[in-house]
Amino acid sequence: MNILLTNDDGIQARGLWVLKKALDDRYAVTVVAPDSEKSATGHAITLNLPLLLDKIYRNGKKIGYSVSGTPADCVKLAVHELLPDRPDMVISGINPGPNVGINLHYSGTVSAAKEAALLGIPAIAVSVNSREGYFETAARFVCNLAGFVFKEGLPKGTFLNVNVPDVERIEEVRITKQGISGLSESFSRHTDPKNRTYFRQGSQTQFIDYDKTTDGHVLGKNLISITPVQCDMTDHDQIKRLKSFEQILSSLTNEGDNF
Amino acid sequence: MNILLTNDDGIQARGLWVLKKALDDRYAVTVVAPDSEKSATGHAITLNLPLLLDKIYRNGKKIGYSVSGTPADCVKLAVHELLPDRPDMVISGINPGPNVGINLHYSGTVSAAKEAALLGIPAIAVSVNSREGYFETAARFVCNLAGFVFKEGLPKGTFLNVNVPDVERIEEVRITKQGISGLSESFSRHTDPKNRTYFRQGSQTQFIDYDKTTDGHVLGKNLISITPVQCDMTDHDQIKRLKSFEQILSSLTNEGDNF
Repeated sequence: MNILLTNDDGIQARGLWVLKKALDDRYAVTVVAPDSEKSATGHAITLNLPLLLDKIYRNGKKIGYSVSGTPADCVKLAVHELLPDRPDMVISGINPGPNVGINLHYSGTVSAAKEAALLGIPAIAVSVNSREGYFETAARFVCNLAGFVFKEGLPKGTFLNVNVPDVERIEEVRITKQGISGLSESFSRHTDPKNRTYFRQGSQTQFIDYDKTTDGHVLGKNLISITPVQCDMTDHDQIKRLKSFEQILSSLTNEGDNF
Repeated sequence: MNILLTNDDGIQARGLWVLKKALDDRYAVTVVAPDSEKSATGHAITLNLPLLLDKIYRNGKKIGYSVSGTPADCVKLAVHELLPDRPDMVISGINPGPNVGINLHYSGTVSAAKEAALLGIPAIAVSVNSREGYFETAARFVCNLAGFVFKEGLPKGTFLNVNVPDVERIEEVRITKQGISGLSESFSRHTDPKNRTYFRQGSQTQFIDYDKTTDGHVLGKNLISITPVQCDMTDHDQIKRLKSFEQILSSLTNEGDNF
């Protein structure tokens, strides 16, 4: 099985290489990752700038590329141009820090897996609840999980978002939904040398989920959280409701002010 | 009613100002938009660089700010720091070019509205199926649609993605689901002056939806498409299926190779 490994922390990140080492035992792994940190780049792609490449070697062997783009760029470029064969799976991570709740919208780690799912390739995003921790535990689990996904499959357009607690030995896995854990958002106000105001944005994941079936809650209990994430963004319940307004909405198309 | 107006094409984009003119007739509008084009930036936010501001004036009156960040940054910064009051609605657009199908994942226009929905603020993203076209038709409709949303409401975490055909007079509106219209993706290979290979990424929206209830199909028929989009990314159907594997998955947590 051929696995494309990527991340959003860049080619130098420790989580990537711990995961590669674990996957190498069982799979043919190619790394295509950003050449620098691309955290919080969401599902951005690079249309206005060139995508520069560097071949990456380890122990004299070419094992992939670094790319001057986003995680989603890396997946697209790898699948369309760089890999000789379409990968059987894309794995993104290990991200140092949780990707739960609304973080999923901002996460480059998650978006790389989402890009794979959009391309019809099974995918796993994996994060550890720690900046510096037991990445080996997460790596071992994801290696096993990849085997599970190969065997059991996932529907097209759905991938797995995995969050692993920062402990050496984990007993249990829970299937979860995306919670509402937010970011503790902060903007600090500064003044530059020209006396102009600017802001710096800070963000830290909060675990505010009281719902025990959510990713954030389960991770906070030191269990592995696996959330099936889909590419369909439609609110299907609202379609039913809004369809009853279609005539009213149509009447709004050409009136200067009729509502 | 206070409306925050933003976009992903930047403060100079024509679509923004056509929409502002229409909204000004009925609402108090503040503009907080990127200082340059930020198309295809998805839901990226800026954590590693300062967010610089410029006050924007029209006819001697301060009407908002340009920000050296992404559309999502603009919404966050406006709501948390720049606006005296929380806006009653966020409108993002008018984007020149459709935002249908899988484009929604890449679109900065859509992500600005999604950021508002994450913050609990009603939101509309609006795009026209044209680079240079009848933006006035879209602006008039969105002005009316804002009144509809104020009156009828939307559930928290759901916003409207509106695509308007490039025609002067539109007869009908359809409530749609996000389709599978893809991007016609292309990478061109180049060589730089140092003889290194690089790629340029191109993308063009395709209308490949045979399903008549999708955004792309409806827009292709020159009808206005309104898709309710939700922030919940969970594949709830897969939760039910994967829960039956929880014990097997738990057994994978600490084994070297047991699958």
